[in-house]
Amino acid sequence: MENTASSWRDHFIALRSNKFFEMTVIAIIIFSAMLIGATTYDIDPAWMTVLKVLDGAVTVFFLIEIIIRMAAEKRLRDFFKSGWNVFDFLIVTISLIPIDESEMVLIARLLRVFRVLRLVSMIPEMRVLMDALVKSIPRIGYVALLMFIIFYIFGAIGSFLYEKINPVLWGDIAIAMLTLFRVATFEDWTDVMYETMEVYPWSWAYYLVFIFLTAFVFLNMMIGVVLDVMTKEHEKLSIEQGEGEASEVHWIKEHTGEMEERLERMEKMLEQIADNNANGKPKDG
Amino acid sequence: MENTASSWRDHFIALRSNKFFEMTVIAIIIFSAMLIGATTYDIDPAWMTVLKVLDGAVTVFFLIEIIIRMAAEKRLRDFFKSGWNVFDFLIVTISLIPIDESEMVLIARLLRVFRVLRLVSMIPEMRVLMDALVKSIPRIGYVALLMFIIFYIFGAIGSFLYEKINPVLWGDIAIAMLTLFRVATFEDWTDVMYETMEVYPWSWAYYLVFIFLTAFVFLNMMIGVVLDVMTKEHEKLSIEQGEGEASEVHWIKEHTGEMEERLERMEKMLEQIADNNANGKPKDG
Amino acid sequence: MENTASSWRDHFIALRSNKFFEMTVIAIIIFSAMLIGATTYDIDPAWMTVLKVLDGAVTVFFLIEIIIRMAAEKRLRDFFKSGWNVFDFLIVTISLIPIDESEMVLIARLLRVFRVLRLVSMIPEMRVLMDALVKSIPRIGYVALLMFIIFYIFGAIGSFLYEKINPVLWGDIAIAMLTLFRVATFEDWTDVMYETMEVYPWSWAYYLVFIFLTAFVFLNMMIGVVLDVMTKEHEKLSIEQGEGEASEVHWIKEHTGEMEERLERMEKMLEQIADNNANGKPKDG
Amino acid sequence: MENTASSWRDHFIALRSNKFFEMTVIAIIIFSAMLIGATTYDIDPAWMTVLKVLDGAVTVFFLIEIIIRMAAEKRLRDFFKSGWNVFDFLIVTISLIPIDESEMVLIARLLRVFRVLRLVSMIPEMRVLMDALVKSIPRIGYVALLMFIIFYIFGAIGSFLYEKINPVLWGDIAIAMLTLFRVATFEDWTDVMYETMEVYPWSWAYYLVFIFLTAFVFLNMMIGVVLDVMTKEHEKLSIEQGEGEASEVHWIKEHTGEMEERLERMEKMLEQIADNNANGKPKDG
Repeated sequence: MENTASSWRDHFIALRSNKFFEMTVIAIIIFSAMLIGATTYDIDPAWMTVLKVLDGAVTVFFLIEIIIRMAAEKRLRDFFKSGWNVFDFLIVTISLIPIDESEMVLIARLLRVFRVLRLVSMIPEMRVLMDALVKSIPRIGYVALLMFIIFYIFGAIGSFLYEKINPVLWGDIAIAMLTLFRVATFEDWTDVMYETMEVYPWSWAYYLVFIFLTAFVFLNMMIGVVLDVMTKEHEKLSIEQGEGEASEVHWIKEHTGEMEERLERMEKMLEQIADNNANGKPKDG
Repeated sequence: MENTASSWRDHFIALRSNKFFEMTVIAIIIFSAMLIGATTYDIDPAWMTVLKVLDGAVTVFFLIEIIIRMAAEKRLRDFFKSGWNVFDFLIVTISLIPIDESEMVLIARLLRVFRVLRLVSMIPEMRVLMDALVKSIPRIGYVALLMFIIFYIFGAIGSFLYEKINPVLWGDIAIAMLTLFRVATFEDWTDVMYETMEVYPWSWAYYLVFIFLTAFVFLNMMIGVVLDVMTKEHEKLSIEQGEGEASEVHWIKEHTGEMEERLERMEKMLEQIADNNANGKPKDG
Repeated sequence: MENTASSWRDHFIALRSNKFFEMTVIAIIIFSAMLIGATTYDIDPAWMTVLKVLDGAVTVFFLIEIIIRMAAEKRLRDFFKSGWNVFDFLIVTISLIPIDESEMVLIARLLRVFRVLRLVSMIPEMRVLMDALVKSIPRIGYVALLMFIIFYIFGAIGSFLYEKINPVLWGDIAIAMLTLFRVATFEDWTDVMYETMEVYPWSWAYYLVFIFLTAFVFLNMMIGVVLDVMTKEHEKLSIEQGEGEASEVHWIKEHTGEMEERLERMEKMLEQIADNNANGKPKDG
Repeated sequence: MENTASSWRDHFIALRSNKFFEMTVIAIIIFSAMLIGATTYDIDPAWMTVLKVLDGAVTVFFLIEIIIRMAAEKRLRDFFKSGWNVFDFLIVTISLIPIDESEMVLIARLLRVFRVLRLVSMIPEMRVLMDALVKSIPRIGYVALLMFIIFYIFGAIGSFLYEKINPVLWGDIAIAMLTLFRVATFEDWTDVMYETMEVYPWSWAYYLVFIFLTAFVFLNMMIGVVLDVMTKEHEKLSIEQGEGEASEVHWIKEHTGEMEERLERMEKMLEQIADNNANGKPKDG
């Protein structure tokens, strides 16, 4: 029995890492994405039935695929150790929940959309990209908090001062912060400004200070994080490929270490020669 | 007496650096920020009274907290040496000033908003961020002056040429500069341009030159400053963590220094051996 | 016979690399571009005939020029090995196809526009720039795919939720993605948002998440790729010119290599001296 | 006579480099800029006369100042060797030309505006900034040409296809290029697109390709040039201040050079010792 299970597992492992199988899964994901896109068009009810059948087929295929990948692991626990596997598992299981009521159709559709994200988990280069993006999130965290504080302060001030001028834009702090986000994207921000300048002629200062602060902090955040991630990646790549400055520095470091060891050996030899000479010479006399 | 004061101070120092106390202060700051946010909504007068009482409690808590931190210092002077402490002190004391008249309520509210900034002074990571931002201000200074000169020259030219076309946008140099800032943010700038092009068909050149100049100087300013601060920070971090190119260069530098000393010693030994040989050999003859 | 062909080829090679000939070709390309620009203006039918004759002359000139360059190659195959030559050949031959019908005039005109691109293939500095741009395309590929997935998911969600609110903007997934591109460029995006917020008051979250995601991924893509290409180019240039950090590191690497070899020689000599001393000394005794 | 002239010159040189004199000149430039700004406001004719008198005084002051700086040079030729001096000379002399006719008043005013630029030539830090900006112009040149070619091709295509749809936006190639610049700044570009999409439903591809191309080339240009200038400046500064990676690499380079020389000396000594041993030993036998 044990052997049979083990040989089955070998089959699954072979299948999982089979290039053709991988390509099929990617093709099915793209096909599933196209099905979702197709449902946004007004289509014949007859075709709609075809789409539903195809969608069911895709769901079954995904279920089989994930079972194969789970069976290929020695212990089921290992499967859930990878965040990508958990992600795939959730996408697949959630779409299995039968949703019949017409009101829930929308939610069922929305959940199906996220199947497209499986493309990211299937293509290794995309995983690398996503990992880099996810890795930069904690670094962005504090700058995002600083950004939020700026928005909160300006939102409160804006709500206090301009509420009576235009409650649609400045009614409470939440609406005011949305208006400020609009100002930060330069979207018809002068209309917002000219309106408040009629009551507070100096309110242009409020907008200018806000725009400069957010633009500066935002650019700082973006460029800083991207730069940092890129520089590290660039150095790593340079050392791996053996090209570029970082790789040369790495080479120099290693060879400096070797030279040091050699010099240490040479110094010892010199000391011995000097000792020998000092001891040997008197004998000559 | 001295001992009692000293033991009290020890208690305050212990309290100040207590993790739980820090968390409480941060929680109160966030709560205070939410109180301010709440006042921007239309709320029941009954709740308004509750908010006022809570606001008073927050004020008292901040007062006690700052007194504890002041008492924890050996000399009061030391407390005011840190810019962050001065900042906290101002935020707390200003909110103590009793403002009763209804007209001043707005100012009292505005001042309370800045309490949110105390979050920045409480969280160490935020302080580091703010320090970096503040450090880059002098470097930005001269570029901002250059930017202002560009705006001033184009503002004067715009005011001279287009005043009669649209005094609302080009009435005097101050209004013209505000209009130019609008053009720089691409906010409905073509409407401004098409209007003046009816009188001066070549005025598109004025806008294009202005947009290119400001975009170039602005990007220069932002990217340049961020890059500079980031590169320095990156190098410092790399050396501290012992990873990356900057750290390897640092390692090489130190070891090159050591190798030099060793080589100096070895050269002296060689000279002595050569001397011995030269002096010793004749004796052999 | 062979000799005559060979001597002809020498003439063509000389002509091809002649500075004056190159300048003439560039001048003709610019003139051809101006002809195309001229046809967009309403001009006298008499002048139109002149333009047509000039255009024919340009076509003939380009034909002769490319024949010369083809004849200058030893084997015609070599000519088509360079992508730029294939590009030039296509531009020239396509404009030779006689198009008489009035409906095809537009296509003929459009094809002639691409003659301007021959400027890029003629000026070496432009070729370098284009090569750098082309080289960065594969790197952008995967990030562009990630971007497309984000647009696709948000497009599908938008189409599901907002189709009934405004079918012009959210009718199907293709239209929804175009609307999202508009939102990504901040073009009147608040109008789009306010419309959907009337039905779904929380839909601002949809737009904010989308804007943050695209802005972050786009900046990542752009800055990352540009940075990478620039750093490599910068290092290469630094080493070529013998200035800057990368060149100094390169110098150190080479000299460290030389020092290593010298140290190896020295160690061998030391070993021999030590050997001699060890062997020689006993003889002294 | 010679001596008197020479002693006068010494006075002028002393005056020119006098800190107080420099401050006065800067103050007068700022005052002159404020005069120009004042004339854009509607002011009393009485004050207008005062402004005119003050403007005359500023002109005279600038004339005296430039004569002092010219007299401070040994040969007048040296004065004109500096581009900044030529710039100052032009600004001052042009404002001396008497312009009486009312129609020319505008031109006179415009010329006076450029006096503000003298601030740049007076403050050393501003000169450094301007030099950096000017230095990056040639590098931008070819990318700007590539940008122009893209605009020209898309302008021609747009003019061919969309002229009949909206001649105000696409009438000829020049107007089409201005419209494309508007599209590149995202200014109401969807209005332009939706209009042409009614006739050519696929024309959104035209705009998307154009936006991606220009955004990519523009960012490439900006980031690339800024990065390059910054990196060089950063390295130079690092070496001057003796801090940071570039300075450490420089230190290593110098010390590697010294170590090489020392090793060369040591190798020669070793060779001599080995020679002595080889020659000396037989004598022992």
